[in-house]
Parts: sequence; structure tokens; C-alpha cells
Amino acid sequence: MTETLIIPARRGKAAMAKQGQSIRVINTHGNQVVDTWAFNLEDLNEFQSNEHTRPTLMKMTFKPGDSLYTNKRRAILDVEEDTSGGIHDLLMAACDDHRYKLLGCTEYHDNCSDNMINAMKEIGYDAPEVPSPMNLFMNIPWTPAGNLSWVAPISKPGDYIQFRATMDCIMVFSACPQDILPVNGVDRKPTEAHFSIF
Amino acid sequence: MTETLIIPARRGKAAMAKQGQSIRVINTHGNQVVDTWAFNLEDLNEFQSNEHTRPTLMKMTFKPGDSLYTNKRRAILDVEEDTSGGIHDLLMAACDDHRYKLLGCTEYHDNCSDNMINAMKEIGYDAPEVPSPMNLFMNIPWTPAGNLSWVAPISKPGDYIQFRATMDCIMVFSACPQDILPVNGVDRKPTEAHFSIF
Repeated sequence: MTETLIIPARRGKAAMAKQGQSIRVINTHGNQVVDTWAFNLEDLNEFQSNEHTRPTLMKMTFKPGDSLYTNKRRAILDVEEDTSGGIHDLLMAACDDHRYKLLGCTEYHDNCSDNMINAMKEIGYDAPEVPSPMNLFMNIPWTPAGNLSWVAPISKPGDYIQFRATMDCIMVFSACPQDILPVNGVDRKPTEAHFSIF
Repeated sequence: MTETLIIPARRGKAAMAKQGQSIRVINTHGNQVVDTWAFNLEDLNEFQSNEHTRPTLMKMTFKPGDSLYTNKRRAILDVEEDTSGGIHDLLMAACDDHRYKLLGCTEYHDNCSDNMINAMKEIGYDAPEVPSPMNLFMNIPWTPAGNLSWVAPISKPGDYIQFRATMDCIMVFSACPQDILPVNGVDRKPTEAHFSIF
């Protein structure tokens, strides 16, 4: 029996995945972006890195059958399944308080960077930095000229993406609290998401 | 009289630029990629960051008139001039020894990551990490499906790009030693490049 755990709306959650275990990230309500990180449990300075994954895959995104690589160019996750339509973003930094101030917020706004740091603290680890995340389900189309835009996810409620850990790792998830841009749907209402490790 | 300094072939070079100074990076022989970093002189943990620049520019590259942002979302460089055709890469990590081993090298290969670290040491600074660089003149086209390829630069001998520092910073350059893939031209012959700060 696999336990399904919550990533609360606007919050983060971290958990360990042993080598060979599968990690399923579920877009429970269909419109929620989940910023996701994978750190090598034995050395937190090694982590999944988008800029090191791209030169190996020679693609801007990934699909089942691909591996995702660390800043030491080693596979850390294999992509096993994806029912979500395959739209994920590897270009944008995690949101942070600086970002929300630039978007006009005058008070503290929940953000994925702080969520990542706090979620790791909750299970007893200090993150060495906030790497550029895998923004699961986030829809950032590019044009031939290289222009980018923020649009709503194409995923449906219950869609999921599943990885397999190729080393022992700490997985960190943040249900993105972005409610100013439409990345979490045109209603701009961040929701919870779920995950399981089995 | 502005001094023009060499970035030796396959090597790195670091220099300080004060707020308001211009930094010109010259592709002396036309085919040389120059990996480039900018660190805040007052706090080396703040540096130009591609994943923080993209959400502000909403583009995958940059042109004169754009600013480039740090991991704290502050402008660190303005793009002043670009005679090179505007093709630069912000997607790929700096090459490193891991990378060359994966490309089949059995012995140590010069690489931009070590060049960056060593160039900063030469002027008395310890880099906190190797951020994802601005790969000046590097030509990595993308397709509508997101596929990427390594191709030769379009720049011509003497082409340059010029930035203006919007804070005191340490600029670091590496004349990329890649001689296996054609990023430094189809002849795969890394050359020196030059820069000036004025």
C-alpha cells in the first residue's frame, strides 16, 4: 500500500527516496505547478541541475526514458511515466521574495525558494543553495526568436509524472504560491498537490 | 587610452569593473566562445544568473538595451553594444572535467569551470560556486520542439559585445577549450580572445 502525501497549497515538503524507488508527483487539481529538486543524500552539494541536464539531453525539456543529471553530470533521476502532456519548465528560477517585491507586493509573499529551504530544515537538512528547479507542469512556451511567456498548465486533475531515483536522494517539492501570474491557472488560485514514494 | 587584455587560448582571466565602467569582450578571431561571469564585488554570493534573468526579460537571450540580473534579481550589467549578430547561449553549463570524461577524454582536459575558479584565485578571490555562465558568441539553436544543437559561431573576427557594470563587480572570462564539439568553429581550434574595461 503506497502512502500518498500532501504538498500543502503554497508550501513545501521534503522526503527521502532510496536508489531504485519511484517518486510520483500528482497534479491533484490539474493546474498546480510543483517546483521540484533532487539532492544527492550523501553530498548535498550535488543536485539535479538543468544547465547540466540540457547538454546531455540536447533538449529543453524531458520525457519518459530520459535521465536527469546533477551538477557533477551523473544521472540522479530517470523519467518513468508522464500522463500530463509533457509540459514542464527548466528555464525559470524558483520564485522568491525579491521576485514578488518586483511584481508589486509590499509585504512578504510565500515563495518556492523559502519553501525549499524550510522543507529541508523540517527533515533535518540545510540546503547549500536554491538550485534552478524543475518546474513540473509549468507551461513556458518559447518562440523561434526566443521569446517566453507565462501561461496556464495543460495538465488535468490527477495527472502525474513519475521518476525513479538512481541514487539515494532528498526530493523537495513546493506547491508554487504564484497568484499574480497565471502559471497556476487563469484563476490564479494555488492549490495543494500530492506525491508518493514507493 | 584603453588597454586591451588577453584571455589566453584555453584559459581564464578575471578583472574588476567599477560601477559605470564599460566591459568590451572581443572575439578576436571570430570563432571563439567566451564563457563569462559577473560577481558582485561586495558579496560574491550574488552573481549574474541566467535563470533569474530570463523571467525578467522573458527571452532566452539578450540584446543592447537589456539588463542582466543577479540571483537576487538586481541588474548587474546593461548590454550596451553588440556587433556579433546577437547569438549567445544562456542554456548550457560551463564545461568541466566530468564533461570531457563523458566525451571520451581519458586525461585531464582544460575546462571553463576550472578556468573560472583559477582566474578568480589569481586576483585573490575564492568563487563560492561556478554559476551557469553567459556563453558569449556560442551558437545553440533551439527548435519549436525544444531540441538543441552545437553549431559554430556566426561572429566575425573583431566582433564584440559591450556591457556596462551597474554595480562594482568581478568579471571572469574563459576562452572555452572545447575542441571535440564544433562550438569554437568547425576547425575545433580554440583561440585567445580579448577584453577591455574602461
